Amino acid sequence: MMRRIYYERDSSRGPQGTLNRLLDEVEELREAISTDSDEAVSEELADVLAWLASLANIVGIDLEGAATRKYDNVCPRCTSSPCKCIGIHDAMHG
Amino acid sequence: MMRRIYYERDSSRGPQGTLNRLLDEVEELREAISTDSDEAVSEELADVLAWLASLANIVGIDLEGAATRKYDNVCPRCTSSPCKCIGIHDAMHG
Repeated sequence: MMRRIYYERDSSRGPQGTLNRLLDEVEELREAISTDSDEAVSEELADVLAWLASLANIVGIDLEGAATRKYDNVCPRCTSSPCKCIGIHDAMHG
Repeated sequence: MMRRIYYERDSSRGPQGTLNRLLDEVEELREAISTDSDEAVSEELADVLAWLASLANIVGIDLEGAATRKYDNVCPRCTSSPCKCIGIHDAMHG
């Protein structure tokens, strides 16, 4: 969907410029979460996903396919769902 | 999918801690893009999406639903697809 809407414009910005916008949106998401407004958080989540999808389009990688290849319904480390890894969970998503 | 795999562990980290991991992953994505390795970029795109999905799960918002509500197959600003907004495209994703 994001490719159809934005690809032409995004591709002219390039990956690093798009990545910078993605980082800006993550900061806006942090602010939205701190306000506890579900509507604001929902909007910022959508924006972060939109910029991530735009970035994937620019580098020519299917975002959903990339996620499915890596996670495929289980934790890639312990191959369980729910994840059963022992230790620091932060190490798991990769 | 990410909710099923990781919700229990993610929810114990809280939104801000998960947001910090999301930012770490975006930086890893930046490094992957700079290496021009499609496999590395694909893995990091998957990780960023995984952490974004985890964050959405923690705050109780459906990520795909949030994106669909905001974008709904058109640019929310000009309501066109492809986007026809005039001026700086960076202002458009919101």
